[in-house]
Formats: sequence, C-alpha cells, structure tokens
Amino acid sequence: MRKYDTEAHFLTKEYQAYLQSRKEVPREEMYKGFLRLWFDQGVWEPHAARLEEKLLDLGDGRIRDMDESGIDVQILSLTAPGCEQFSADVGTEQARKANDVLAQAVRRYPGRFIGLAALAPQNPTEAAKELERCVKELGFKGAKINSHVGLDYLDEEKYWPIFEVAEKLDVPIHLHPVTPHPTMLGLYAKYGFALSGPVLGFGAETALHALRLIFSGLFDRYPRLKIILGHLGEGLVFWIWRIDFTVRKPWIDEEVKPRIKKAPSQYIRDNFVVTTSGMFATPAFMSVLHEIGADRIMFAVDYPYESNEEAVRWLEQVPIPDIDKERVAHVTADRLLKLG
Amino acid sequence: MRKYDTEAHFLTKEYQAYLQSRKEVPREEMYKGFLRLWFDQGVWEPHAARLEEKLLDLGDGRIRDMDESGIDVQILSLTAPGCEQFSADVGTEQARKANDVLAQAVRRYPGRFIGLAALAPQNPTEAAKELERCVKELGFKGAKINSHVGLDYLDEEKYWPIFEVAEKLDVPIHLHPVTPHPTMLGLYAKYGFALSGPVLGFGAETALHALRLIFSGLFDRYPRLKIILGHLGEGLVFWIWRIDFTVRKPWIDEEVKPRIKKAPSQYIRDNFVVTTSGMFATPAFMSVLHEIGADRIMFAVDYPYESNEEAVRWLEQVPIPDIDKERVAHVTADRLLKLG
Repeated sequence: MRKYDTEAHFLTKEYQAYLQSRKEVPREEMYKGFLRLWFDQGVWEPHAARLEEKLLDLGDGRIRDMDESGIDVQILSLTAPGCEQFSADVGTEQARKANDVLAQAVRRYPGRFIGLAALAPQNPTEAAKELERCVKELGFKGAKINSHVGLDYLDEEKYWPIFEVAEKLDVPIHLHPVTPHPTMLGLYAKYGFALSGPVLGFGAETALHALRLIFSGLFDRYPRLKIILGHLGEGLVFWIWRIDFTVRKPWIDEEVKPRIKKAPSQYIRDNFVVTTSGMFATPAFMSVLHEIGADRIMFAVDYPYESNEEAVRWLEQVPIPDIDKERVAHVTADRLLKLG
Repeated sequence: MRKYDTEAHFLTKEYQAYLQSRKEVPREEMYKGFLRLWFDQGVWEPHAARLEEKLLDLGDGRIRDMDESGIDVQILSLTAPGCEQFSADVGTEQARKANDVLAQAVRRYPGRFIGLAALAPQNPTEAAKELERCVKELGFKGAKINSHVGLDYLDEEKYWPIFEVAEKLDVPIHLHPVTPHPTMLGLYAKYGFALSGPVLGFGAETALHALRLIFSGLFDRYPRLKIILGHLGEGLVFWIWRIDFTVRKPWIDEEVKPRIKKAPSQYIRDNFVVTTSGMFATPAFMSVLHEIGADRIMFAVDYPYESNEEAVRWLEQVPIPDIDKERVAHVTADRLLKLG
C-alpha cells in the first residue's frame, strides 16, 4: 500500500536566518507573543536541535526517514510560521526563495517529493502570481497558508485573487494552523505553547478561520475551490452536525444565511479534504470517516514534528476496510493533487 | 428506560426584567457585543417568543412537554447569560432570587425537577456560601457557571473557594457556554450569533476554559471535584489523544508540566462528565463514548432551546448496548447527582 505524508514540513537556511534576525521591529512588536511562543517555546529549544536538522534536510536523510517507515511520498511545505506575518515585500521575497529551494529538491527526488507553495497573502496580487508560477513553472500541486495574515483572515475579499487562481489551476490550498490570532492569543498564552499550540490553540484558530471562509460565501464564488485542513479537520468535523442544526434554526441571525446557498456541512464535504496529521486517534478518526468518508481524508504524519513510524503503525491497524485504507493512504491525495 | 434531561433551562420574570433594563452602563459597555448578541440575535427575537414562554414556565406546561416525550426528570438551571457579567452585588442578589424561584418549582414537582444553583462568582466568598445554601437548604444538586466571569476564567485562584465547597459537598459544577470572552468575541462576531454562538464560539470558549482549569492544577488541589460539560464535551474529548500526545513531548514548554501530576486526559476522565445537549450526532457521540465511556456521559436535551422529541428519538436509535444506553439516559446522572 502506497503511503503519502500529505503534510510534511521543511525549513531553509535563509528563511531561518531571517526569522531569527527579527529585523522588522514594528510588525514584530505586534507579534511579540507570537514570536515568543514560536521561538522560545517551540521548535527552537535545545530539545529540538534534531527537529531543526530534519526540517533543514531536503536530501537523503529525509528520504532515509521516509524509507524506514514506508512513506513513499512527502507533500512538502515551508514550516509554520511561514511568510504571512512579515511585511508584504519581505514576505513575498522570502516565499519566492523558499519555493525555489523546494523546487530544486522536488527535481532531485522526482516522485518522492511534491511541493506546495509558500505564499505571502499580504500582497494578494503577488501571492496569486507566485501561486501561478509555482504550479506552472515549478510543478507544485497547491499552496499552504498559515491561517491569519497579519490581523486578517482570508474571508476578506481582498485576498480572494489567490483563491481565484487556485480554482482556475485546480490546486488546493492547505489552511495550516499557526499561533492563534494576536487578539485571542493572550487567552491561550497563560499556559504557554501547550495551550496556544497543538493542544487547543492551533485547532481553535484554524477551525474559526475555516468557518469564516464558509460563512463569507467564498465557496459560492469559487465552488470548485479545495481547502486542506490538517489534524482531522481541526475539530470542525466534530461540530458538523451542530453547525447545520444551528444554522437551520429560525432564530439564527441573518449575518450568515444570505451569504451562503447550501447547508454549511455541504461546503465542508464539497470544498474540504482533511489529513490525519498528528491525530493518530482511532475514535476521532472514525467519527470523521463516518461524517465525510475516506474520499475526503488523506494520511499525513506532520513530519518531522511527529514520527513516521508511529503514524504508519496507527494507519496499519485502524479498523477500516482495505479499500478505504487505500483511499486514506494515497488514493484521495492522488485524485486531489493529480498525482496518478 | 428513565430519561433525564440533564441540561434544561429556565428564566424568571425578575431576572429577565433586570437583563432587559441594562442598568449598569459601565459593565454593559464592556459587554456591548455580548449583550447585543444575546439580546438582539439570540432568544429575544420575534421568532423566539415561544422559547421565552417555555423558559419562563416552571409549571405544568413544562411537565407536559416532558411527558409528551418521556422525559422523567429535568436538571434545571437559570439560562445563560446568567449572573456572571453583572456587578458582584447585583449578580449575587439576582442569583439568590433565581435560586429561590427554582427551589419553589423543585418543591412543587418532587422527582421531576432537580435544581442547579445560579452563582455570581465575581464575589467568590458569597458564591461559595450561596452554593452551600442551595445544596443544604434548597436541596440542589450542584451549580452552573456560564464560563467567563467578567474578564476572568476560573483558573484564577481567587475563585477556588467555590470549587472547595463543591468538592466538600460532593456536587458537580456545570461549566456552561456563554458568548466568547470579550477579548476574542470580535473575531467571531463578524458572522453574528451563528459563529459566536452554538456553531463554534460557545464550544471554543468552554473548551478553552476547561483546559485552563486542568492546566492550572485545580484538580490536583480538589481531586474529587466534578465538572459537567455540555455538547458532548465542547470538543475537548475530540482532542483528548492529541492533548496527551503534545504534553508528553520533550519540547513542550514548562508552563504546564509542573502544575499537573497526571496526563491531561486523566483529568478529563476523572473530573469531567459530559452531556449530549444539542449534539444528537451519532459519529461524534460514538467517538466520545469510545474515549470516555457511558459512565461519563449523560443524556441532555438543552430544553427549551432544543426539542425533547428530537433528542429522545436520537437516543432511542443510537447503536449502543442497552446497558450503556441506560447509563447515558439516567444511571450516570443518578450516580453523579445522587438521585438514586
């Protein structure tokens, strides 16, 4: 059974150096909490030297790790925090450079590495162009956006040129978690990276963002647009029944109904695909499978943050029919990313 | 099979009049978004006149609704937003008056109505005393707190006298959703009550609050304390595996580990019981059942916000063994609330 890690991360030396230089004081002041969490309590701790090394390795070491656990393909993207929090110019430049580095690695390991573009949506026109360049010239299969862009979510129409290009080129956008929006970060930050990061904050941030996209009418404008959500859908699928149940009620307000044509769950089913990254939990997986089906779920490790071996061991024993396991392991990704 | 609605709501004329008078300008300015959402887009719309009538009915009409769907018992509490956002004096007074009204109803319909106390935790000493009065003098079986208290969460130690009394009297606290904390409300409010309320905001608010309680060490201080969460655990159980998985990591920060003695999931299993209120969704229910078991799940409708009939119909067909269905329908509540 072919197995793809549809959510694998890398880092470039140059991007890392830029992050660490923290040059842009005004924006970074705004993101002090954000940067503090990411740098001091995230991947950059002494514990994490090995993690950093693995993020920087786009060569044989990475391939060896994949081979050891039987991962055939990695769908690669620049690790969070990405380029979304820099000034538009710096972000655009950093994204382009990271994409060029990734393109080299993809060329060196054909069939093993698939690229998703880094983008700096704070300049929507340039980000849309960069997405087009990455797909048409570099052979990438989509893009990843790390949730909020400065203080905005992507339901603001000024960002929609990016989605327009994604739909036109028929490539998905992975909406990836990042430290919660600065407005709410303080409520999570009291218990550090644990609460604000993978334990709850990442999911809260990304589920909110995804629902804002749905409620904005984005998918009525771009009905063939596909969004990837990691972590078994960031909790959104857990709420799928209640979302419809609530929006159907006569007393629900009118901010949402005039904007959307279908039941919210229908957008989740039509426009979203979820990955298993960092959620090797069978009860949660089964609930997602029963709600949206294996055609909308892709296996992912979240390499190198999570272990290939643990992820593969989980996938192999998950109690679903082989035909569905094949879908999760690679068939859904083959179709979505046109890898066939 | 006996069936209890473990999360049913009521309203008193006096509390309603006070809410509508909006006397306390300074605090209410702070809560403008909160009040706007609750009043103008919540239960007070023209659509909702029937809802209001049902909330106010603590008599035969309510009993008739229960009988029609075979609900034997309602565990009753003052509807959100509760008394948590008023000044300490007004909140304390309003809570006491609402509790006295509820006590009369409980006396009039013995065995049909069970009371949970309304509290105003903004005066923790008085709230602890009121809880003691409600349990010892009025025969209530616990209390309900509507999430944040002004700008605080209850992980602040100044509120812990309330939990101390709850543990001493061996009665649970229902941690109920309310419109998200004012700090984050703006991010949800763009799409009105839909996004900020039952669709996502309520769960995001309450899951955050519950995890803050766990991470604060509250349950190491009061190991027998029991917290009830509605809506199948407000999403927290969906994340239960990932919470442990993350907190176990060597690179996770040190804000959490020194405060807690056990794996976070162990607190969820030892100190929480969840209800099915407003979540009549079998896949989500099954995932919660598989994680925490029927001994930690109680049937609830969320009356009158949700339909008794729909809730009962769902319970009757949910594909679990009869012995587990009995647990969910009433046995877990009998044990937790000592109704046997």
